[in-house]
Amino acid sequence: MVVIESSQLPMAQDFSSFLSLEAAARKKSPLKGLLRFMKGDMLSLGGGLPHPSTFPFLSLSAEITAMRPGAVNGDTAPVKAKVARATELVTVPHAPQAGKIESLTTSLQYGMGTGITSLREFCKEHINRVHCPKYQDWDVMLSAGNTDAYAKVVAMLCNRGDKILVEEWTYPTALETIEPLGIGHVAVKMDEEGMSAVALKDLLDNWGSTPEQANEAKPRVVYLIPTGQNPTGATMSVQRRRDIIQVAQEHNLILIEDDPYYYLQFSAGRDQQQSDNGAIDGGTNAIGLMPSLLSLDTDGRVIRLDTFSKTLAPGCRVGYVSMNAHFCAIIQYHNEVTTQQPSGFSQGLLAEMLVSHWGQEGYTRYLTENVRTEYLNRCQHLQTSFRKHVNGNLASFIEPSAGMFIWIKIHLERHHRFGAVSDSVLMLDLFNKCVENNVLMVPGWQFSCKPKPADMDPADLLNVWADDQCTYLRATFAYATFEQMEEAMVRFGHSLDAAFSK
Amino acid sequence: MVVIESSQLPMAQDFSSFLSLEAAARKKSPLKGLLRFMKGDMLSLGGGLPHPSTFPFLSLSAEITAMRPGAVNGDTAPVKAKVARATELVTVPHAPQAGKIESLTTSLQYGMGTGITSLREFCKEHINRVHCPKYQDWDVMLSAGNTDAYAKVVAMLCNRGDKILVEEWTYPTALETIEPLGIGHVAVKMDEEGMSAVALKDLLDNWGSTPEQANEAKPRVVYLIPTGQNPTGATMSVQRRRDIIQVAQEHNLILIEDDPYYYLQFSAGRDQQQSDNGAIDGGTNAIGLMPSLLSLDTDGRVIRLDTFSKTLAPGCRVGYVSMNAHFCAIIQYHNEVTTQQPSGFSQGLLAEMLVSHWGQEGYTRYLTENVRTEYLNRCQHLQTSFRKHVNGNLASFIEPSAGMFIWIKIHLERHHRFGAVSDSVLMLDLFNKCVENNVLMVPGWQFSCKPKPADMDPADLLNVWADDQCTYLRATFAYATFEQMEEAMVRFGHSLDAAFSK
Repeated sequence: MVVIESSQLPMAQDFSSFLSLEAAARKKSPLKGLLRFMKGDMLSLGGGLPHPSTFPFLSLSAEITAMRPGAVNGDTAPVKAKVARATELVTVPHAPQAGKIESLTTSLQYGMGTGITSLREFCKEHINRVHCPKYQDWDVMLSAGNTDAYAKVVAMLCNRGDKILVEEWTYPTALETIEPLGIGHVAVKMDEEGMSAVALKDLLDNWGSTPEQANEAKPRVVYLIPTGQNPTGATMSVQRRRDIIQVAQEHNLILIEDDPYYYLQFSAGRDQQQSDNGAIDGGTNAIGLMPSLLSLDTDGRVIRLDTFSKTLAPGCRVGYVSMNAHFCAIIQYHNEVTTQQPSGFSQGLLAEMLVSHWGQEGYTRYLTENVRTEYLNRCQHLQTSFRKHVNGNLASFIEPSAGMFIWIKIHLERHHRFGAVSDSVLMLDLFNKCVENNVLMVPGWQFSCKPKPADMDPADLLNVWADDQCTYLRATFAYATFEQMEEAMVRFGHSLDAAFSK
Repeated sequence: MVVIESSQLPMAQDFSSFLSLEAAARKKSPLKGLLRFMKGDMLSLGGGLPHPSTFPFLSLSAEITAMRPGAVNGDTAPVKAKVARATELVTVPHAPQAGKIESLTTSLQYGMGTGITSLREFCKEHINRVHCPKYQDWDVMLSAGNTDAYAKVVAMLCNRGDKILVEEWTYPTALETIEPLGIGHVAVKMDEEGMSAVALKDLLDNWGSTPEQANEAKPRVVYLIPTGQNPTGATMSVQRRRDIIQVAQEHNLILIEDDPYYYLQFSAGRDQQQSDNGAIDGGTNAIGLMPSLLSLDTDGRVIRLDTFSKTLAPGCRVGYVSMNAHFCAIIQYHNEVTTQQPSGFSQGLLAEMLVSHWGQEGYTRYLTENVRTEYLNRCQHLQTSFRKHVNGNLASFIEPSAGMFIWIKIHLERHHRFGAVSDSVLMLDLFNKCVENNVLMVPGWQFSCKPKPADMDPADLLNVWADDQCTYLRATFAYATFEQMEEAMVRFGHSLDAAFSK
């Protein structure tokens, strides 16, 4: 294994010209300057912190899945016989205690916009192990989850009137976040590996050539979901990732890498050559996963969004953002005047669990063994059910190698009314048949980059198919039981047959 | 007690013309429309929720202070002999259970931008009991704390270039939040009761008469801290509150009532006549506290920010915003694309504690007995220490009737160099003497509405007094032990003597 000394790595480039008006005006609070006097015998009547003796919480604990070496980790798949899972009790005491990483006295107190040190350092070490960034001055900020982090990153990089480059089918919230801010988006063509680097390059090489682009500044921010893309399930190959980075360098782009499904890579390690060093050499990385865009970035132009929502639980409302130190400071200042930091219950429990109980090894095993295996089993079960109950001539999907979704293409060209009425009419009819048969999937148009109707009630949803180019439905294997998935495919098969039959 | 039927109350006025560009463009996500199909036998492969069986948290519990009738509540003041506090164990099970309000299955799952129903309903009922709003269509949204709620309220009401009216000394974060957004502020004179209604009226009656106002739109949003104001400690009388509401009606203003210290009212019930009905008739309200601006508002023009930060613990990162239903919907949509909702650990624990263990009565007793008593004792102790160790000819303060702060005026006119050098020089000299003597208070200029230097390190702080009109220091009695408070006053007394002595 080739170890590169951090000091041999380059420093991040200067991206200060990318800051929005808002971000350029963010600054450190003078009040925080006082904290630095707090040493030695100093008595402070400064910061208005409530005394911890007033907290009515005297201790906090959670029973968690054990990830110690030798602990028995049961299969969590609902259809299989339950094996007793080894559990442990994580406790956070009221006051600091020997052998404890956190106490309620500190984790329930006001803190910095960075998140608490123990958890932040754990996340940073994890990023270093898994992604091994290729420049020196990167850092990590805790966030209140990826949606909040994304909103702050957008506020840092975009002014009203700017446009962000996005995949042609994308996570609806990513667009709903920017639209009210007067920030637009430009769709980039996708293929089975996600955003096309060729299409991205073409779009930017020829920017200004269409009438609507004539007076528009060239976009310089890209939002993308490289692994288990939502909604298409597409995962970028290593080569695609390199190509995207290369276009980003050519056109001086910032890449927002939203990667909540990173650990749900089903083919992890399979058929792929493992590299020596953070996966820059063609294969997967040290834990058998695809190299992230962050790990391929030598400039500090990738902002990577990680979250505990898909690996521990959405309700943690904790994520972490990895990026160059300058951007980190801006996000920290923004946190200080909004969310401040994630919940102290979340941070305290996660710190104790991850640092004191699981450790880096245990957390990695949890991700690659427990979480990945669960979703791999679920994915396979939905695919098997589909093949068993759905007519493959009428609907098909590309097998996802990561994530939570399958993106089902409906072969309308085999519908007897194809061409006689619009695709929208046929898709809406199919969606309504599904609802009649009590199976619900998400209409593909909801992931479209085209303008969408607002304030819909269910009756409206049954009357609208908002993108005539969209002949897809999104199904997830994340939530339903195995029996429910199979029954859902039975109902979908019937709905499809009915919709195509006359 | 006069009970007014809700249906007899007026509806909120239409404030839609107050919405910012951003807020006017916010809309409900079409994805959420799908939730409404979820009834009967519907099988969903729709929403990408992780299955709860993947959560590694099997149960959650916290030892809390008991507030059942008859439970012994010990005094929490650190200097006094500790009485054993009655405690109880709050537990949140993994799956829903009879007799339990919440489970991790739901509280750690994705949810709505409103916060979880059980906790939100508890907060709404609490608001109704304590503040008894005087119009029909008010509602409550959970927030990630008052700083986040304030940032969202500002985003709802203000565009770049707008100005907000604020108290002449105010919470620095309130200004640091708006400055990067290009939103300005206009200071309104204060007296010992906080913002002056006369000054507010004068300012608005004569808006446009000064050169700098000539091309400025008249501000229509006021931010104020009516109770235990930060930093001055001022609390508005009932009459002042009525006067402010009247000016708001005359000039059609929205009032942002930031009220984190509401329950820290030391004179609660004292000398005041209790009213029959939510305190509109001249006295305090049903629990012996000052009527809030919300409780005096018949139009829906008050946005009230409450937080658990000062009453339970800052690390909860949970607050709640009470306002007209139209504004509530905008904040909900904003939550959906940013914080989503507070941490599920926080929400689950708070819901179980407040709903199942304490109840409305227990929570009110906790606020008025435990929290209020703690801060009343602390406040009195700091005042006693001040009188014992500080020369009252050189420094004085107005006794606060609420909050966490005393606002110490330095009588520079008694300094032998007064007039020979600027007040800033004398104040900076005093601050440096305090630091030398190891006692830290916040330089008053940090609460000034004037522009402040940024990115200061401690050395800078010792070289800058950024507002020549400011001859104050802010001290808090919230955090230090009783011994520390007394010793701090000894050191402050020495520093003051030294600064004035030659």
